[in-house]
Amino acid sequence: MHETMPNFLKKRAFLTPDRTAVYFNEETISFKELYDQSSQTAGKLQALGVQKDQFIGVLLRNHLDTIVILFALQLVGIKAVILNNRLAAKELVWQLNDSGAVTLILEEDFYEIKGEISIPSITKEELFAVQADFTEIQEEINLSDICTIMYTSGTTGNPKGVLQTYGNHWWSAVGSALNLGYTESDRWLCSVPLFHISGYSILMRSVIYGMPIILHPTFDANQAIEDIKTKQVTIMSVVGTMLSRIVENLKNAQLPDYFRGMLLGGGPAPLPLLQACMEKGIPVFQTYGMTETASQIVTLAPEYSISKLGSAGKPLFQAEYKILLEDGQTAAPREAGEIVVKGPNVTPGYLNRPEATKEKFNEGWFQTGDIGYSDEEGFLFVLDRRSDLIISGGENVYPAEIESVLLSHPDVFDVGVTGLQDETWGQVPVAFIVRKDGARVTGNQLQQYCLDHLAKYKVPRTFHFTESLPRNASKKLLRRKLTELVSEDGVSE
Amino acid sequence: MHETMPNFLKKRAFLTPDRTAVYFNEETISFKELYDQSSQTAGKLQALGVQKDQFIGVLLRNHLDTIVILFALQLVGIKAVILNNRLAAKELVWQLNDSGAVTLILEEDFYEIKGEISIPSITKEELFAVQADFTEIQEEINLSDICTIMYTSGTTGNPKGVLQTYGNHWWSAVGSALNLGYTESDRWLCSVPLFHISGYSILMRSVIYGMPIILHPTFDANQAIEDIKTKQVTIMSVVGTMLSRIVENLKNAQLPDYFRGMLLGGGPAPLPLLQACMEKGIPVFQTYGMTETASQIVTLAPEYSISKLGSAGKPLFQAEYKILLEDGQTAAPREAGEIVVKGPNVTPGYLNRPEATKEKFNEGWFQTGDIGYSDEEGFLFVLDRRSDLIISGGENVYPAEIESVLLSHPDVFDVGVTGLQDETWGQVPVAFIVRKDGARVTGNQLQQYCLDHLAKYKVPRTFHFTESLPRNASKKLLRRKLTELVSEDGVSE
Repeated sequence: MHETMPNFLKKRAFLTPDRTAVYFNEETISFKELYDQSSQTAGKLQALGVQKDQFIGVLLRNHLDTIVILFALQLVGIKAVILNNRLAAKELVWQLNDSGAVTLILEEDFYEIKGEISIPSITKEELFAVQADFTEIQEEINLSDICTIMYTSGTTGNPKGVLQTYGNHWWSAVGSALNLGYTESDRWLCSVPLFHISGYSILMRSVIYGMPIILHPTFDANQAIEDIKTKQVTIMSVVGTMLSRIVENLKNAQLPDYFRGMLLGGGPAPLPLLQACMEKGIPVFQTYGMTETASQIVTLAPEYSISKLGSAGKPLFQAEYKILLEDGQTAAPREAGEIVVKGPNVTPGYLNRPEATKEKFNEGWFQTGDIGYSDEEGFLFVLDRRSDLIISGGENVYPAEIESVLLSHPDVFDVGVTGLQDETWGQVPVAFIVRKDGARVTGNQLQQYCLDHLAKYKVPRTFHFTESLPRNASKKLLRRKLTELVSEDGVSE
Repeated sequence: MHETMPNFLKKRAFLTPDRTAVYFNEETISFKELYDQSSQTAGKLQALGVQKDQFIGVLLRNHLDTIVILFALQLVGIKAVILNNRLAAKELVWQLNDSGAVTLILEEDFYEIKGEISIPSITKEELFAVQADFTEIQEEINLSDICTIMYTSGTTGNPKGVLQTYGNHWWSAVGSALNLGYTESDRWLCSVPLFHISGYSILMRSVIYGMPIILHPTFDANQAIEDIKTKQVTIMSVVGTMLSRIVENLKNAQLPDYFRGMLLGGGPAPLPLLQACMEKGIPVFQTYGMTETASQIVTLAPEYSISKLGSAGKPLFQAEYKILLEDGQTAAPREAGEIVVKGPNVTPGYLNRPEATKEKFNEGWFQTGDIGYSDEEGFLFVLDRRSDLIISGGENVYPAEIESVLLSHPDVFDVGVTGLQDETWGQVPVAFIVRKDGARVTGNQLQQYCLDHLAKYKVPRTFHFTESLPRNASKKLLRRKLTELVSEDGVSE
């Protein structure tokens, strides 16, 4: 099988040079202009000595410049280590070290991290100011080449770099088009972060379909509603909390008829929200996906959005899923088990983690750790993301990572973190602490300690002190039992 | 890279079981029903002892049954040798022998060929009557597996079996969707033969997109116009002669607004026809493709259909083309040369013809033999299909094949065949004959001889007798000079 294809952006600029690629604030840029700018930036990177196949960290906000830089990296054939810009400095340093990135491209106001890292860094303004008169473009890409690395955390505490190939992104975009359809009038609103697969995958769809994206610096419900109306947006990617706010801010207004739907990811959707959307005539495409599947892998086809309310749908054309019981057998319909997935949009594995990769794959099937069931017709219902995963405002929060930080505090003897329901964020993390004998550390002090080591959204909302944590016979922490402690008298804040 | 995918029809029937797959006369069939019927037929084939990876000849007309059988072959993993049912018995026998087909599935009224072939054959009625209670389906397909074989002729006279993989068909369908777009309301009218790649590729798009096709037994301009109006057809595949008749029969009527376009293949389109379509408001997507590219490889995007009238467009997203001069250099814009193409929809080669395969490929580029040029923006203009190729009513007619038959006649000393312009068919073949000394064979006799050996559409319209043929120093026939003989006195019919 042929594994090479023309470079995505170059091909797109050749096919439809004059189509608009990006709307950002008052600016618009065509595919030809985007290619020209990315190509110039690629030359500047090469003038700095950066080469194909190297890893480069990217710490940037949603901005037109970010899109130019991300495509410049693709044009050179550089593997982009895309960093979540809400992370604490210590987390960023860890990911940069782990990936072996040789340089970091960052926003000027993230400048403080420069002192903490041992590799060269450059602001985007410095990069754009570099003089270069030569660019060598990767005319063809190999679909099995690594395009991006995004870190996710697991049960072991340390985040792992998820490898995403050009093929992963390609198949994801194609599978989405075959499911949701694609027409020349489509325009996708991106107010999710470009450093997440939810945002980056919109970029890839844009260039593969030749579809304009409307890029927002951050999510603002009123701006989103406004742009859907004035910029003819047909699709928007959202997580539950975003959609709630749009529903709220819409009040009695309606979205225009050409609006095809909200692609709703980031964890199981609460039924009341889906019903509210139905009542307001907002089409919703529920989807299930993750960093490891290069965004969507299971999405509800438009025609089932009402009759299968609450389902994440069926796997995209190229993909498959199964529900496995603990004994490895395939579950019967409506029997809950672990969701395992397969397809060319699934990651080849984790960067420099052969063991972790081996653990998560079984005969080509990726074990998501998430719990769900299939109905008689094969529609997937996601019951719960991985039992220990907390999803807060669409961000994945891994208890083990927070526990690992808290355990490093000299006054902490034992710790358990779990998620509590929250009206605004869906879930928020809370910590249960067993102090060392005689230690007097307070919740406020632990909160500050976490802020020094973790992204703000990962810092537990509350710290509960207790005498012991619920563990099973083999001392495994029973996280689900932690919440029961909240209502008991023995727990104090 | 992952090379396996779920079986196309099985996956489609799982994803959208209730969508209509095919409209044929008064019948409709859903994807679920199509899968069930194909699956039963697959069982019947297996009951007959037919196995995965065998070659089976298919000699069938455009009919719902044909679609069921073609998908049954995919479900078992059989390589379908799809035969042009306009061929003469001798030609069919040759292709069956060459492919090593173990069985032939045919229409009852093609029964006469049964006596001529040495392998078992079965009518579709006999096949459907087989009792079977077991089917083993290929749950997954490998994209590099051979799905179909279609014969094309070349300059050497003998036709060659073009290998078409599942991946070829997949990428062709995906590339077409990315270019022309795809929506849930799309419906494709297929009145081109299913035994051609133009028809078979509509089948593949149908199952990959989940799109209904309206299948016609043969092309009938009025029926096509009627069904576009009453069955909400949005796209139709045509060759020039078909489009001319539609334009003619439409008179002053218009096609409905939802009709997106005519996909026009089968040779360079005459400009007057394109202009007539423009005047009548019939959108036309010009395209360039061939059996070896699993249909389209270069197609004009809708937005350029007027400004680039006459161009075949740009290569589909996954594909590339170049214009090569005789010295192997890439031509400058507007400089004519041979069109060479590349992409995952291009055939891996010819069945059992390593030499012919090697000849036609150069570093992954397939040499089409067709002549064209690129404009400054990279739009392809096809000047001429292979200099020796005659396209008559959308069928490829290869002079060498006809010459080879005529040379086998005892009275013929030398022969040259070329195409003449024809109002109805675009081109028709004509033959120039040098008789052996003293031989008195007539044009009528040679016509009858050809009818015994060749499909009717290949039989020369006229036979011109001459003393000698125009040949160059190395005795190579100068086919383009043959036409000049027609107007000369020395030629008699």
